[in-house]
Amino acid sequence: MNDGRIAALIDDLGDVPFSFEPSLLRRRSRDYFWYSQALAEDLAGKQAEVVVTPRNEADVMRVAAACARRRVALTPRGTGTGNYGQSVPLHGGVLLDMSEMTAIEWVRPGVMRVAPGARMHLVDEALRPGGQEQRLHPSTKRSATVGGFVAGGSGGVGSVTWGGLREPGNVLAARVITLEERPRAIELRGDAAQKINRAYGTTGIITALEMPLAPAWEWIDLAVAFDDFASACAAGLAVALADGVVKKLLTPISWPIPRYFGPFASLCPDGASLLIAMIAKPSLETFKALLGPLARIIHELEFDESPATTPIYEYTWNHTTLQVLKSDRNVSYQQCLFPHDRLLESVAEMAALFGDEVWHHLEFIRFGGRVTASALPVVRFTTRARLFEIVELYERHGVMVANPHVFTLEDGSRHKRADADQLGFKAEVDPYGLLNPGKMRSYAPVRA
Amino acid sequence: MNDGRIAALIDDLGDVPFSFEPSLLRRRSRDYFWYSQALAEDLAGKQAEVVVTPRNEADVMRVAAACARRRVALTPRGTGTGNYGQSVPLHGGVLLDMSEMTAIEWVRPGVMRVAPGARMHLVDEALRPGGQEQRLHPSTKRSATVGGFVAGGSGGVGSVTWGGLREPGNVLAARVITLEERPRAIELRGDAAQKINRAYGTTGIITALEMPLAPAWEWIDLAVAFDDFASACAAGLAVALADGVVKKLLTPISWPIPRYFGPFASLCPDGASLLIAMIAKPSLETFKALLGPLARIIHELEFDESPATTPIYEYTWNHTTLQVLKSDRNVSYQQCLFPHDRLLESVAEMAALFGDEVWHHLEFIRFGGRVTASALPVVRFTTRARLFEIVELYERHGVMVANPHVFTLEDGSRHKRADADQLGFKAEVDPYGLLNPGKMRSYAPVRA
Repeated sequence: MNDGRIAALIDDLGDVPFSFEPSLLRRRSRDYFWYSQALAEDLAGKQAEVVVTPRNEADVMRVAAACARRRVALTPRGTGTGNYGQSVPLHGGVLLDMSEMTAIEWVRPGVMRVAPGARMHLVDEALRPGGQEQRLHPSTKRSATVGGFVAGGSGGVGSVTWGGLREPGNVLAARVITLEERPRAIELRGDAAQKINRAYGTTGIITALEMPLAPAWEWIDLAVAFDDFASACAAGLAVALADGVVKKLLTPISWPIPRYFGPFASLCPDGASLLIAMIAKPSLETFKALLGPLARIIHELEFDESPATTPIYEYTWNHTTLQVLKSDRNVSYQQCLFPHDRLLESVAEMAALFGDEVWHHLEFIRFGGRVTASALPVVRFTTRARLFEIVELYERHGVMVANPHVFTLEDGSRHKRADADQLGFKAEVDPYGLLNPGKMRSYAPVRA
Repeated sequence: MNDGRIAALIDDLGDVPFSFEPSLLRRRSRDYFWYSQALAEDLAGKQAEVVVTPRNEADVMRVAAACARRRVALTPRGTGTGNYGQSVPLHGGVLLDMSEMTAIEWVRPGVMRVAPGARMHLVDEALRPGGQEQRLHPSTKRSATVGGFVAGGSGGVGSVTWGGLREPGNVLAARVITLEERPRAIELRGDAAQKINRAYGTTGIITALEMPLAPAWEWIDLAVAFDDFASACAAGLAVALADGVVKKLLTPISWPIPRYFGPFASLCPDGASLLIAMIAKPSLETFKALLGPLARIIHELEFDESPATTPIYEYTWNHTTLQVLKSDRNVSYQQCLFPHDRLLESVAEMAALFGDEVWHHLEFIRFGGRVTASALPVVRFTTRARLFEIVELYERHGVMVANPHVFTLEDGSRHKRADADQLGFKAEVDPYGLLNPGKMRSYAPVRA
């Protein structure tokens, strides 16, 4: 903490809104990192010194200039729905709350341009009358921002059709502001826009995103019960491979996870595994035919994400962990990517290896043009060491892991390093190393 | 020919339109089988005795009843754009010209139901204002009928995204009339509708089809030049695997085929291979980025299939053969499916094997949920025996072939047999073996 610097910085801000309110500082400095007992420990008490809430790009530039001049750290965040402490300020300074920059700049067929704080569910609400929707969203869609998703996420609902955010064409352009005395706006198009994907705001402050859109089908939420997890996985894979079936979500979930699913708990037969799905209405008949004779549909409802409802996607991706955490705080999770060429074998192998310690559920996705599955298995927590041991065990069995129990880009990456492109770009946009410092640990500031 | 039976049959028809006009009989008894010198020989002179043109399902029933009663063969056809003599009557009788049954029964989001004679380009014209289009169409779209495509085809433009007609969900339902004294209408839904796919009308007379629809993107026609075929294939594969890029067609074409491409011949650099593509406008920038620095875009135009134009798809699939045939009648073609797990290796292997005898071009498709390529290579014709030898050579190198130089279902199939389901169903709908007789050669009539 350096009150002098912060006070000087505030003087530089003019009329840009800010707050020192302690409870706001505390809340805005957190996300859902507490899903990991390791992160809960490592990030405890990390907090910003001031929350600044820009209304537009000019405000962002003003804050960036002030932080550069005063050498104060700046951590941008959306609504803080991440799980790795992406937006937890490790070195105090400014928490830049982007959630007020919510404009939808324009919408064209297949593309939109939005400000980073646009709420994903409100964006879809605005797009739907025009027959379009966002290609991808996290299970936290109803609170997440587009900018937060792109800066902190990798994929989600929709990835079974479109692949993840890293696939060419899933982020079309990004505009970022540099952290310099005279901040510049840089427009990144195409592959260059990937410099900001999952970089946690370390590679510039996003002020606009151009994102591809998908046709807005009439989606049907489904939950299908199977006697065992292997059958749910096999049925899910058959649907994932059926290119004639329009789908948005395919999630096999093993017993006993469904026991924690509130309203579904009573619908799900004891001991059964589920296949959760979002299927376009015209593909529904084909979907059902692919399930096989042993499947029992226990839930089928037109998609609805209005406030009084629970859309089916809120039982999938990392919301699965959350559903269990609601009644049992003694669990955590992992993040895996199974090999596409021996997918079901590998899933069976890992299920056998961990027994009751790990509760399995998969997310079918496309990855590099191939159907495979990622997974966020629920892990019964014993010790921190065991969490890391489990990561190693997955890797030793040929399953890639993006470790969610660490807070740096490098340690959380499947490749255990920062993307070279992102690292190089950071030198250009953040010479003093003030953007979310500590998250990209391999970066050494080029200027003092 | 049995004039007595035909005369009696005509008496049974009431006011259903028919014709004995010789030139009409000759024209309606042909399709584009002459792409194959072998079929040109085998099917020469095969001709119907009367052309009957039903206006509606009641007419179809009346014809079916009459044919059953008089034991006269009946061969249904659309507009005759096939290449295997699908609709060439091998045993005279009635040619049932379905091309007047053109009704679009209804259109809903993602699904339509049409009569079999509906012209594919007119259907798309009708659908487009509602933002929809057909998922798949042959390169002969501007003359083909929906029923002819489903009864005689396997896939085409659109298969790079949706897979072929056999993929679950790509034919939703079919209604067929049986050939019996008291014809029945049978509604086939889901997987059961596959009984009529590529059965050449042997498994019932199609009177309605329920087909899935796709979003109608603004498509851009593109032709991209590369120094060599391998580079065009590699770029095509990269785009095929990019799930974030919305595409409808990806066709690498080796030199010297582009020399035969009319207007393109002058645009294409000497010796260059092409990648032909249809890309959704919002994906265009990403598409171009994936092509690599050595690609040269020689054609880029908003999609237009109005009469005065040549849409780019009319250089692909089996239209490639046609383009060459326009100035050189001494070529033929093959039909291959490359293995998805060693696609480019296999393509290179076959290119090396045949040298200048076979001119290669690929169609990237999805098949069983995986990206692979089918191909209709242009073959310099020497002898009939050599055509069949080339089939064998492909197969010996692990490339599957659907032999286009034979006229029975079984010999033309990759599996060298009639689909068991189709064979069994035929006994139910065609007890006397009068539907397009000779095409399903393993069928023995259950009644005399």
